[in-house]
Amino acid sequence: MQIHTATIREKTQGHCDIIDITPKVKDALGRHKIRRGLATLFVSGSTASLTTIEYESGVLQDLKELLEKLIPSDRRYRHDDRWGDDNGYSHLRASLLGPSLQVPIDGGNLLLGTWQQIVLLDFDNRPRTREIVLQLMGENE
Amino acid sequence: MQIHTATIREKTQGHCDIIDITPKVKDALGRHKIRRGLATLFVSGSTASLTTIEYESGVLQDLKELLEKLIPSDRRYRHDDRWGDDNGYSHLRASLLGPSLQVPIDGGNLLLGTWQQIVLLDFDNRPRTREIVLQLMGENE
Amino acid sequence: MQIHTATIREKTQGHCDIIDITPKVKDALGRHKIRRGLATLFVSGSTASLTTIEYESGVLQDLKELLEKLIPSDRRYRHDDRWGDDNGYSHLRASLLGPSLQVPIDGGNLLLGTWQQIVLLDFDNRPRTREIVLQLMGENE
Repeated sequence: MQIHTATIREKTQGHCDIIDITPKVKDALGRHKIRRGLATLFVSGSTASLTTIEYESGVLQDLKELLEKLIPSDRRYRHDDRWGDDNGYSHLRASLLGPSLQVPIDGGNLLLGTWQQIVLLDFDNRPRTREIVLQLMGENE
Repeated sequence: MQIHTATIREKTQGHCDIIDITPKVKDALGRHKIRRGLATLFVSGSTASLTTIEYESGVLQDLKELLEKLIPSDRRYRHDDRWGDDNGYSHLRASLLGPSLQVPIDGGNLLLGTWQQIVLLDFDNRPRTREIVLQLMGENE
Repeated sequence: MQIHTATIREKTQGHCDIIDITPKVKDALGRHKIRRGLATLFVSGSTASLTTIEYESGVLQDLKELLEKLIPSDRRYRHDDRWGDDNGYSHLRASLLGPSLQVPIDGGNLLLGTWQQIVLLDFDNRPRTREIVLQLMGENE
């Protein structure tokens, strides 16, 4: 059994920027050569999330519009009144979608579907540099 | 430490079909005899999700109605305009609920609550045969 | 590789009570001295969830109001008609947010962001004593 911990860094535009991090996860998996095991992804921070989606511009825009409908960015939240940083909606979106994701590994590959990519969602109201922890746990033969 | 990877297959009706996969997870756990560790479940595909629920027809219907309210199936999404497969809402529901779930194992049992079952939700707009990856990681004594 | 399974108990007020369980997770990590690995948290039960949030009273109240808007507590659900326990909305909230959460460990620390705490959300309509399974898997050197 091996454990490898890597950090994936992404510069984002905030405002529900959705970034496909699958290539960087595959790169790390190639370097550490885990054949069978588990990839755990975790975004450190309270205004971003991880999920999977078909990375296609139509559905990405649909997701942005859905989140705007469910948790509007153009109203004040109690968090904003208290801290004045105007990103209350960002925190709510992040708590709803969650910070962690797991993808099993077998035969040296992530067991994603054909049209399924791993994405970072940055809900903050300004550009950020995000750190996603990637932990690979498993066997290399 | 052992790692076992199994595939659970389910034929679904789509349209927010909700299927209790707990018996199949328990069967696999019985075969591989992991005493302490972690069961990771992951649905490969971008229009289905995993969660837990009390598997009771009333609340299952409530969940279908809730998702219909939050993410209606009877309107067009940008994804539909682009691809013409009319399942934009399915992708959005899947990204919101997420593809992965973990359940700890101790004493050879899944540590689920009494009224808590593991379910596959198929959001697609047609019947599908789904593959759920079950990975068991842990010790067998 | 080591696996330790602990139970965190919390008395809650129900009604979307949000409790910061980070200190108890850190306590368990300190006792078991896992240096590198994975903390898996799982709430046994079908009316509670786990996520992360900045534990600040403004955003906690915002989250309660958001869930009340998305999944109102003041209407009847089919689950209520069938079972008469009036907590249909609690089940729906729990299935939407999910029961499990993973946080990587490195250098003996949870890799949380500075303003990111692990929280239990109890959606039930009465006070409960909740059990959260904490499983630590990894190496202690």
